[in-house]
Amino acid sequence: MNAKDTFLAANAHVDEAAIQPLPNSRKIYVEGSRPDIRVPMREISQADTPTGFGGEKNPPIYVYDCSGPYSDPAAQIDIRSGLPAMRAQWIAERGDTEELPDLSSEFGRQRAADKALDELRFPGLHRKPRRAKAGANVSQMHYARKGIITPEMEYVAIRENLNRAAYIESLKATGPTGEKMAKLLTRQHPGQNFGASIPAEITPEFVRSEVARGRAIIPNNINHPESEPMIIGRNFLTKINANIGNSALGSSIQEEVEKMTWSIRWGGDTVMDLSTGKNIHETREWIIRNSPVPIGTVPIYQALEKVNGKAEDLTWEIFRDTLIEQAEQGVDYFTIHAGVLLRYIPMTANRMTGIVSRGGSIMAKWCLAHHKESFLYTHFEEICEIMKAYDVAFSLGDGLRPGSIYDANDEAQLGELKTLGELTEIAWKHDVQTIIEGPGHVPMHLIKENMDLQLEYCKEAPFYTLGPLTTDIAPGYDHITSGIGAAMIGWYGTAMLCYVTPKEHLGLPDKNDVKEGIITYKLAAHAADLAKGHPGAQIRDNALSKARYEFRWDDQFNLGLDPDKAKSFHDETLPKESAKVAHFCSMCGPHFCSMKITQDVRDFAAKQGLNEEDALQKGMETKAVEFVKTGAEIYHKL
Amino acid sequence: MNAKDTFLAANAHVDEAAIQPLPNSRKIYVEGSRPDIRVPMREISQADTPTGFGGEKNPPIYVYDCSGPYSDPAAQIDIRSGLPAMRAQWIAERGDTEELPDLSSEFGRQRAADKALDELRFPGLHRKPRRAKAGANVSQMHYARKGIITPEMEYVAIRENLNRAAYIESLKATGPTGEKMAKLLTRQHPGQNFGASIPAEITPEFVRSEVARGRAIIPNNINHPESEPMIIGRNFLTKINANIGNSALGSSIQEEVEKMTWSIRWGGDTVMDLSTGKNIHETREWIIRNSPVPIGTVPIYQALEKVNGKAEDLTWEIFRDTLIEQAEQGVDYFTIHAGVLLRYIPMTANRMTGIVSRGGSIMAKWCLAHHKESFLYTHFEEICEIMKAYDVAFSLGDGLRPGSIYDANDEAQLGELKTLGELTEIAWKHDVQTIIEGPGHVPMHLIKENMDLQLEYCKEAPFYTLGPLTTDIAPGYDHITSGIGAAMIGWYGTAMLCYVTPKEHLGLPDKNDVKEGIITYKLAAHAADLAKGHPGAQIRDNALSKARYEFRWDDQFNLGLDPDKAKSFHDETLPKESAKVAHFCSMCGPHFCSMKITQDVRDFAAKQGLNEEDALQKGMETKAVEFVKTGAEIYHKL
Repeated sequence: MNAKDTFLAANAHVDEAAIQPLPNSRKIYVEGSRPDIRVPMREISQADTPTGFGGEKNPPIYVYDCSGPYSDPAAQIDIRSGLPAMRAQWIAERGDTEELPDLSSEFGRQRAADKALDELRFPGLHRKPRRAKAGANVSQMHYARKGIITPEMEYVAIRENLNRAAYIESLKATGPTGEKMAKLLTRQHPGQNFGASIPAEITPEFVRSEVARGRAIIPNNINHPESEPMIIGRNFLTKINANIGNSALGSSIQEEVEKMTWSIRWGGDTVMDLSTGKNIHETREWIIRNSPVPIGTVPIYQALEKVNGKAEDLTWEIFRDTLIEQAEQGVDYFTIHAGVLLRYIPMTANRMTGIVSRGGSIMAKWCLAHHKESFLYTHFEEICEIMKAYDVAFSLGDGLRPGSIYDANDEAQLGELKTLGELTEIAWKHDVQTIIEGPGHVPMHLIKENMDLQLEYCKEAPFYTLGPLTTDIAPGYDHITSGIGAAMIGWYGTAMLCYVTPKEHLGLPDKNDVKEGIITYKLAAHAADLAKGHPGAQIRDNALSKARYEFRWDDQFNLGLDPDKAKSFHDETLPKESAKVAHFCSMCGPHFCSMKITQDVRDFAAKQGLNEEDALQKGMETKAVEFVKTGAEIYHKL
Repeated sequence: MNAKDTFLAANAHVDEAAIQPLPNSRKIYVEGSRPDIRVPMREISQADTPTGFGGEKNPPIYVYDCSGPYSDPAAQIDIRSGLPAMRAQWIAERGDTEELPDLSSEFGRQRAADKALDELRFPGLHRKPRRAKAGANVSQMHYARKGIITPEMEYVAIRENLNRAAYIESLKATGPTGEKMAKLLTRQHPGQNFGASIPAEITPEFVRSEVARGRAIIPNNINHPESEPMIIGRNFLTKINANIGNSALGSSIQEEVEKMTWSIRWGGDTVMDLSTGKNIHETREWIIRNSPVPIGTVPIYQALEKVNGKAEDLTWEIFRDTLIEQAEQGVDYFTIHAGVLLRYIPMTANRMTGIVSRGGSIMAKWCLAHHKESFLYTHFEEICEIMKAYDVAFSLGDGLRPGSIYDANDEAQLGELKTLGELTEIAWKHDVQTIIEGPGHVPMHLIKENMDLQLEYCKEAPFYTLGPLTTDIAPGYDHITSGIGAAMIGWYGTAMLCYVTPKEHLGLPDKNDVKEGIITYKLAAHAADLAKGHPGAQIRDNALSKARYEFRWDDQFNLGLDPDKAKSFHDETLPKESAKVAHFCSMCGPHFCSMKITQDVRDFAAKQGLNEEDALQKGMETKAVEFVKTGAEIYHKL
């Protein structure tokens, strides 16, 4: 089916399921040093603790929010208009870019002129593309190295701190036990972070220094002013990417836009459009104009379409035009498989699964056919010139990543990684922001080697890995086989985790799969942040555990990554609304509730007018009989 | 609803969904040194490699099979009769047990005499319970320490080797490339096993020595002769446990038996019946009589029911009678929370989530009410006497396990672990088999500490952990938050992983949840085996990856842990039967198949009459033009 058959621009509409606020959640904006720096967060309100447990207020907690204006009921959403160009003023102010009279890409101009595409075309773009003025470099890295703190940098600094200071203040203000509450609910285990250096509070200057050092990137194409700045680096919260995109076998523009809004609702920090089907150019335009998160692509996919799928017919000129076409649409990072060198290709011949990266296989085929190093490699500095004129970041692709446990960490993979390190230095010479893609399929005990070699070869440029999958034997569950590897490599220092859905190896993910993949990767990323000891990472766990202990069921659902599923699971066994305040749950039933004994312990102590430990250690012996008489009830009366 | 309302023994029937063989799978039996040692395995047959890829035969692979007679079409299944008493002869032969005239438990005799229970009662048991003769010790550990290799030990040795030798022989016999195939398909990464000592081939003598040393157990109550022996220890394949059981809020005997047969179908190595609802005794009887895997329980749950849920009314006498009641039914291991000492209880007062173990909270409440050490602790040696009279294994419960990230690795938890180590030594003094339960909720970076301390305190007695969950923020996905921790702790040396289902913290798992939990834990256990370098662990990954590379879709599905789901996912995008032989998949479509480039590389080499690497390294340069002319097709013709 042709996508056009199922999509008309005039009928494009927002996915209603993606624009409701999550339960008990409210979008707030934390203002920065200027009024147009307004950093979104999700505030989750909580019920008071039941009287019998202490009766204290539980102030709202704040969580990172990728969902953009969609989850803000005050926002006007019309996907035919796209999102507001929030960053336009910041870009213009810098005075180092210019509006172009027309698209620079020949292909882009052809598509624009093609009347047959009118009914597919995104109708809401009324500005011209921008580019750096001649000789200018508009990358965030360039500014950072000049010592400039951009609004984007300030924005991400505020974003990474998650309004923690306000939360702590509100805990202290809850009453006489406020100080104790604040200590309890912000306590966390010291992490183990393998040489990362995460400050207690992220400052704009810290952001700048990390970007300057190449240890983090802010993917922010000047032609994607709709995006909300975010940062990728191992001294920041671990991020996740969701892949979407059509294939020749299906999916329409409407569906792809829905997958994007759905991805960011559940926590996708960036989205890659990996379309390889029809109307790649127009699909991407719709996605970018409606996306508050950075969009990545693999430009070689589209270039290949332009030569009708014949890899050997690809040329530098076609590829170059594709880069410019996409850069002027606003793609924030490009996966470029420039490390697939001729000498590595024979190393794949004895693999179990050969070359599994699509981009890698296209380039390998080209290299073999021409017996030359690829134009990605030989024209790398020219690519850098394009990147810095739009601030597109490199995501240096691992074209030779292992596609099976058998092939993990082999010489082809590690050889390519070394080359990616060399290319990183070239990119950095041009102040082009760069991240490095990683595997793939790797058994657990070989994961750390990947991270360590990446840090060494690529000089701490952020690592961005797919999984890795820790076994090959569970098709249908590869979000989990890879979620294990993702959590571990995130702990070791990977900055962004590329999700895997349950459909991996089997089919194109639908919306349910996208959500399942996102939530799996959010929890993996969060587990990594906990293990690294990212400041404040444990606040959400603590709040949720307190709610769980106090049988605040709705709060337990709402503080989780997927309130809808948690609630529906609970409802399956105890559907009545009254069960939401029940002081037991269906697993154990009213006679077996283990959560209640500690409350008995605490109550017993309180009755003696002692603090808990003293009561138990000193007073317990003589009071045991009294405890039986007065307090030995599993159920606490409210 | 009373379970009796929905269950009548006369209507009990096997779950049809649980007795079909899995696709292309056949049950085989590997015979041991005597004809009644017949060790079941699942043989998965594979299609030949398509001619264009080499055309070789792919011999069947063998996988561990927990499903018992259910998946054997030759078996007569009637759950009202129960399974054949396979081990009865072995037990009788040893001459150290006797048949008792009647049940030894007072409660058991009451239930047996209660006519009102007739319609619920399992009708197929026509033998009397057995017990060790006076002064005898019938534990596998006792035999092992006397140097005796029991049929059970031989059975597990055969089982652990997974018919690898036969597989290798059949690979070699495939033809001229057989030797190469055998090398390729059995190659695996050397593991990292943290001091485990896994031999290349498991011998009966190795099994004996590990059991004697206390480093492994074979849970095999003499009153559960229906069970197929299996071993739990870190030098063996990592095992998983599935919990089932009713609660006061629901589920019938029929449903619980179905959950058991469903669990073992998907790979549950043991099943714990955690029933806390009605008719616990009768439910357990049905489960044990129909279970080919060891059954574990937490006897304190039933004891509590006997005192109407009032923990403080529990007595040693009631508990003791419960142990004997269950031991004579055939429970293979008992979780006993004997490490909950008075001095640890105050340490839980300042926890975020207090005591979350049901058994732990019951004992804590008892201890507080009586201000005495628990009868589990004070009568521990008497418990050992019961255990060794039936060969019930201890699973020393972690009553103070952390219920939140906040509480992980605190002094209460680690104090109890030390006590469990002391109790292990007492159990071993009696030659009672013992495993140690572990947490719970633990962030990734604190998992290894759990394992290391357990090995130290408990002298390498097998560790058996619940998860651990690596974050608290994903209710509805705790099979995954915990699957991450389970895979890691399995790698570090945990011998058995207790599964967690998606319903954890929210509700009672249904059959779908049970399956989701099992598959998640199977893949975690397998990832652990790969990382430890368990001999042959990678065979299944290699076979599946080869099938994937060769587009043998059905083989890819069938070699996976869940062929049904894999196939149904594939069918969603490409439902036609012909797509099952398609040489591309829906993710990339026909123009983007990356798997094919390596085939082009290999074909090119073959045409030059060179081996692959030589062709590529030496011949490529001059042959590049020819490659374009002859071979530059993404699609390989069959």
